[in-house]
Amino acid sequence: MPVQVTEEITHPRRAEIELGAVLHALSDPVRLRMVAELAALEIGEESSCGSIDVPVTKSTCTHHFKVLREAGVIHQRHEGTARLNTLRRDDLEARFPGLLDTVLSAAPR
Amino acid sequence: MPVQVTEEITHPRRAEIELGAVLHALSDPVRLRMVAELAALEIGEESSCGSIDVPVTKSTCTHHFKVLREAGVIHQRHEGTARLNTLRRDDLEARFPGLLDTVLSAAPR
Repeated sequence: MPVQVTEEITHPRRAEIELGAVLHALSDPVRLRMVAELAALEIGEESSCGSIDVPVTKSTCTHHFKVLREAGVIHQRHEGTARLNTLRRDDLEARFPGLLDTVLSAAPR
Repeated sequence: MPVQVTEEITHPRRAEIELGAVLHALSDPVRLRMVAELAALEIGEESSCGSIDVPVTKSTCTHHFKVLREAGVIHQRHEGTARLNTLRRDDLEARFPGLLDTVLSAAPR
């Protein structure tokens, strides 16, 4: 019987989220656009590389989501073979008040 | 007679300052501390690698100031052999309202 091996998805705890890592994660235009798309979702909605509108290949998209997750910007969970992503808005707001909204306001549309 | 060759210092114009470059420049803890030090200066005061309090060598300090200048975060001018630095606070505020203060508030002290 085939066994599906799923890579464990780890997230920094809220207190471990570092400003430098968040700024670095947001400094890439594609990642910033991905974050803006996640920010525009309804509460409870999730996005994947299959559903998000960014001009990169799926593997590049997967890489960018990983950078965002490791920085603490997004949460990822497995569903089948997909990874579903949401913004860690409350955690970011608690750590760095106003930062996310200020950056998103400054981002090109 | 010896001729002193001075590397030209170029700065992006206000409209050329890009969010990604600014976020990248601020994502390094040492550069962020340098910016915080510049932000704490009185109007008209300037700082150099000789006067700023950061735990790096002079050549590393020089490199970090260059990254900040090229991103449009600081202005540099020559005075003798020194480079004197000031924050481009007005330009940053005009381009990305609230960003600098939000990042500085979020920075570790």
